[in-house]
Amino acid sequence: MGSSKFNLNLSAFKLFERLCKNAQEYSVLVEKTKCGATLVDAGLEAKGGFFAGEIITEICLGGLGQVKIFPVQYEDVVLPSVYVQTDHPALSTLGSQFAGWQVKSEGYRAIGSGPARAIALKPKKLYRKLNYSEQADKAVLVLETEKKPPEEAVLMIAEKCNVKPENVYLVVFSTTSLAGSTQVSGRIVETGLHKLERLGLDPLIVTSAWGYAPIIPLHPKSGEAMGRTNDAILYGGTANYIVNYDDDEELENIVKQAPSTSSKMMQEAKELAQKNPRFLDIFKEAGFDFYKIDPNIFAPAIVSINNLKTGKTFRAGKFDILVMKESLGL
Amino acid sequence: MGSSKFNLNLSAFKLFERLCKNAQEYSVLVEKTKCGATLVDAGLEAKGGFFAGEIITEICLGGLGQVKIFPVQYEDVVLPSVYVQTDHPALSTLGSQFAGWQVKSEGYRAIGSGPARAIALKPKKLYRKLNYSEQADKAVLVLETEKKPPEEAVLMIAEKCNVKPENVYLVVFSTTSLAGSTQVSGRIVETGLHKLERLGLDPLIVTSAWGYAPIIPLHPKSGEAMGRTNDAILYGGTANYIVNYDDDEELENIVKQAPSTSSKMMQEAKELAQKNPRFLDIFKEAGFDFYKIDPNIFAPAIVSINNLKTGKTFRAGKFDILVMKESLGL
Amino acid sequence: MGSSKFNLNLSAFKLFERLCKNAQEYSVLVEKTKCGATLVDAGLEAKGGFFAGEIITEICLGGLGQVKIFPVQYEDVVLPSVYVQTDHPALSTLGSQFAGWQVKSEGYRAIGSGPARAIALKPKKLYRKLNYSEQADKAVLVLETEKKPPEEAVLMIAEKCNVKPENVYLVVFSTTSLAGSTQVSGRIVETGLHKLERLGLDPLIVTSAWGYAPIIPLHPKSGEAMGRTNDAILYGGTANYIVNYDDDEELENIVKQAPSTSSKMMQEAKELAQKNPRFLDIFKEAGFDFYKIDPNIFAPAIVSINNLKTGKTFRAGKFDILVMKESLGL
Repeated sequence: MGSSKFNLNLSAFKLFERLCKNAQEYSVLVEKTKCGATLVDAGLEAKGGFFAGEIITEICLGGLGQVKIFPVQYEDVVLPSVYVQTDHPALSTLGSQFAGWQVKSEGYRAIGSGPARAIALKPKKLYRKLNYSEQADKAVLVLETEKKPPEEAVLMIAEKCNVKPENVYLVVFSTTSLAGSTQVSGRIVETGLHKLERLGLDPLIVTSAWGYAPIIPLHPKSGEAMGRTNDAILYGGTANYIVNYDDDEELENIVKQAPSTSSKMMQEAKELAQKNPRFLDIFKEAGFDFYKIDPNIFAPAIVSINNLKTGKTFRAGKFDILVMKESLGL
Repeated sequence: MGSSKFNLNLSAFKLFERLCKNAQEYSVLVEKTKCGATLVDAGLEAKGGFFAGEIITEICLGGLGQVKIFPVQYEDVVLPSVYVQTDHPALSTLGSQFAGWQVKSEGYRAIGSGPARAIALKPKKLYRKLNYSEQADKAVLVLETEKKPPEEAVLMIAEKCNVKPENVYLVVFSTTSLAGSTQVSGRIVETGLHKLERLGLDPLIVTSAWGYAPIIPLHPKSGEAMGRTNDAILYGGTANYIVNYDDDEELENIVKQAPSTSSKMMQEAKELAQKNPRFLDIFKEAGFDFYKIDPNIFAPAIVSINNLKTGKTFRAGKFDILVMKESLGL
Repeated sequence: MGSSKFNLNLSAFKLFERLCKNAQEYSVLVEKTKCGATLVDAGLEAKGGFFAGEIITEICLGGLGQVKIFPVQYEDVVLPSVYVQTDHPALSTLGSQFAGWQVKSEGYRAIGSGPARAIALKPKKLYRKLNYSEQADKAVLVLETEKKPPEEAVLMIAEKCNVKPENVYLVVFSTTSLAGSTQVSGRIVETGLHKLERLGLDPLIVTSAWGYAPIIPLHPKSGEAMGRTNDAILYGGTANYIVNYDDDEELENIVKQAPSTSSKMMQEAKELAQKNPRFLDIFKEAGFDFYKIDPNIFAPAIVSINNLKTGKTFRAGKFDILVMKESLGL
C-alpha cells in the first residue's frame, strides 16, 4: 500500500468542503482560527445532528467507506443505527478512523481521528504494520473534545502534519452530541478490526467489511454518554469481514475470541453479576482508569469472518439487548 | 428562526428542477400552464412511482430532510417503508411538509403542502408559533388532488405567495398513486410532531427527529386508499424525537398521550369492537365528516422522545400489525 | 415503448464512467483492449467489492433502477442484502439486466447482461414482446466470466451492436468475486419477473417493483458459489410487483405458481428429501445439465403482486432460512 495512489486527506477534504458549504443544513459552525486553520464545530456550541454525524464518520474513514443511518429492530425497540461498509477496511478504519492521536497542549486534551493521522503517523507502529504513510498538503483531523482547541494545539497539528496552519481542517464535537454519538457507533467495523489485529490477524488480508451499531439516546453527562456508546458496540454491534486466510482452524479460533463477551474481564464480571456487565460498571470496577480495563472488551457483540480461500464463515458472540437497553435507559 | 438564512423554497426548487430534468426516469409529465407556471404531474395521468414519491417527500420537507425507501419486516409481511430523518424538525415538517393549505377555486379543491406555505403563511397561527416566514422569488407547492388545478387556482397561489405566475412550481398527484401514497407515509414525523404540538410541546425545542411508516399496497378508490394510508401511520408508523426539555415528568405525560391509540376516540372504538378500529370504520362512525373525528387519533403508532437535558427516553404505543394488515388487504 | 426516449446504454454509460473515474476506490482495473474497447475488470485479477457490485447492478439495470446494500436479519443471522427498486421493471430487468446474451468465441464463453442486449436484440423474441429496441453509439455490456474476452469476442460484440470497437464498454468479473455475487443477488426482481412472464403475465403491465436477496458469503469454487447465489434467491429472496390486471382470480393463480418452491421439480425433490433441496443437489440430480432443470425453480422464495385495478394483493411462498444457511455454510 506504500505506493498506493490513495490520498485519504484529499478524499476527506472533499467531504469536509461539503460540510462547510452546507453548514446551515448540517447545523454546524465554521470558523477560521487565528493561524488560519478551518474549524468546524459540529457538536460543542453548534447543534450538529444525524447528518453531521454521518458525514463526519465518512471523513473519519478518509472517504473510503460508506455510512448510512437506518432503523434497526432490537427485540421490542427500534433504534436508528449506523451501517458502515468498506472495500478498504485496513486503510479506512485503522489507517484513518481509529482514534489514535492524543492531541494535548497545556490545559487541553482531545482524541484525534481521521486521515491526518496517516501523515503524522499516529501511532507509528500501526502505520508500519499497515505499510502506509501519506504526504498531503491538506490535513484533516476530527477531534472528540469538550472544547475548541487552543491555537497552540492547532499549530502543533500543522507541524506534525508538515502543512501550513491554513491547511489544517478540523472537526470538533463533544461525546454528548448527536454527531458525536453517531460517529462513535460508526466505529463498529474499526473496533472489530482492531480487536482482530490484537488477536493476530493481519488487517491487510481483510478485503471488505461491513457492520452496524445503534445510535444511542443522548445523555448530557459525558461519562454516561461514553458508557452508552460503549454498550451500543459491546452488546448491540456487529462487524463482519471477508479475508484471505490459509488456515481455517486458526481463523475459527481468532473469531471465537473476537466478540466483547469473549474477553476475560467480561466473563469474570458476568460470573460475578450473573449477567453481562454494563460498561460503566466495568469502568467503575477499574477505578475509572482506562488503562486497567482489559483492552479485549472493546469489540463488537457479534463478529463474523468469511474466508475467501475456503468459503467457510466463522461467527461468534451475540447481542445482549437486555443489558444494552438498560444502559441506554430504554 | 425569523432571521434564519434557510430558504425552503429555494432548496425545494433544486429538487423540483431535478425532477423535471429527469422526467422520464421519474415517470412524470412536465408542462407549463397558460400563465407560465410549471406543473409536474406525478400521479394523475402520469404514472409516477417510488422515486417520484421519494423526491416529492423531500420537496415537501423543503429540502431539509432525507427520505429513504427500504423494506421493513412487519411480523410475517415485508413492506417497502419510508424512512424520514431531519435535523430541522419544526421547520421541515410543520413549516413546510404539513398539508396546511386548502387550495380552492370554483369547482376545484386540493390539499397543499410544501414550502410555498411559508410565504403565504398557511396557516398564520402556526407560523407565528414557529416564528418563521419566508420571502422567495420562487414558490414551490405540492398538491394532493384528483385533477390539475385550473388557471384561476394557479394565479391565486402566485398572488398569495407574491411571486409571478411563471415562478410558481407545482407538483400534483392523486392519493391513489404510488407517489401519492409514498409521500403520505413520509409524513410520519410531521404527524407525530403535530400531535405533540397539540399536546403542548413547543416544536422549536425538538432538535432532531426520525421515523418510518410502510408504503401501502395501492387501491384504486381514494376513500379506501386514504383509509389504508391512515392505518399505515396509526398502526405501523413510528416517530422519534430528541428534545431539550426541563421537566421529565411533564414530558413523560405528553409522550403517553402521543400515540394514535391513546386518543379517546380510539379507545372508545376499541372497547366497542374489542380490537383497534380501522380508520375507515372511525370515519364511517363519524358520518364521513373529518371535523367530527377526534384530531388526536392522527398520530403514529409508536412515539418516543429522548430528552437531551436528562438523558431519559420516554416511549409509548405499539404497532398493531394485525389491524394494519387487515386494512391493507394483506 | 418503441418510441421511448430512454437510452439504456447512455444511462448505463454514465455509471460506467463513474466506475472508471474512481477505479481505485472501486478496486477495479481499467484497460483498453487492442481494438480500443474499454474493459473494466471488477473481479478477475481486480479485487472489486461491495461498491463495484452495487454500481455494476445499476449498470445492468440500464440506469433505471436503484440498488442499495443494507443488512437484513434472517432469523439468527444478519446478511448484507441487495435491495432493488425500479419504476421501469420490464425495461430495466428483462430489457437490460437479464443474462440473455451468450457471448462465445473460440475457447471463450461469457454470460452477457446489460443494455447492449437491447441493441443486439438478445434474445429477439423477448425484445419483440417488450416492443423495444435501442440504437446507440455506445454499447455497455456486463460479462460474467472466468477470463477476459479475447479480441475476437470484443469485435463480435461491436459488430452485433453496430458500434465502433472503441465504443464498446465492458465490465467483467467472476461468479466467485464479491462484485459478482452482489450483482447476482441484485437480479432478484428480474428473476421474479422472468418467472411471471413464463407464467403468462405480460411484463409491460408491471408499473413498479422492488425486492431484495442476501449477498452470499463468498466461496472460491465457482460451482459452490453458483449454488449459494441460487439458494440466496430461491430461499432468501423476495420480489414484489405492482400491476394493472383485469382478472384477480387469474392473477392469484399466477402468483401461487411464482415462488421457487411452487415448481414441480422442487416439490418432488422436497418429497424425496423431506425438506427443501439445495440448488446444488438439484443440479447434481440433473446430471449437471442446466437444460434438464425445470426452469420454474428459478424464482424468488416469496412473490407478491398488488393489483392497481382492484387494490388486492396476492402473496405466495416463504423463506427457508434453514436450507439457505446450510447452503451458505452458516
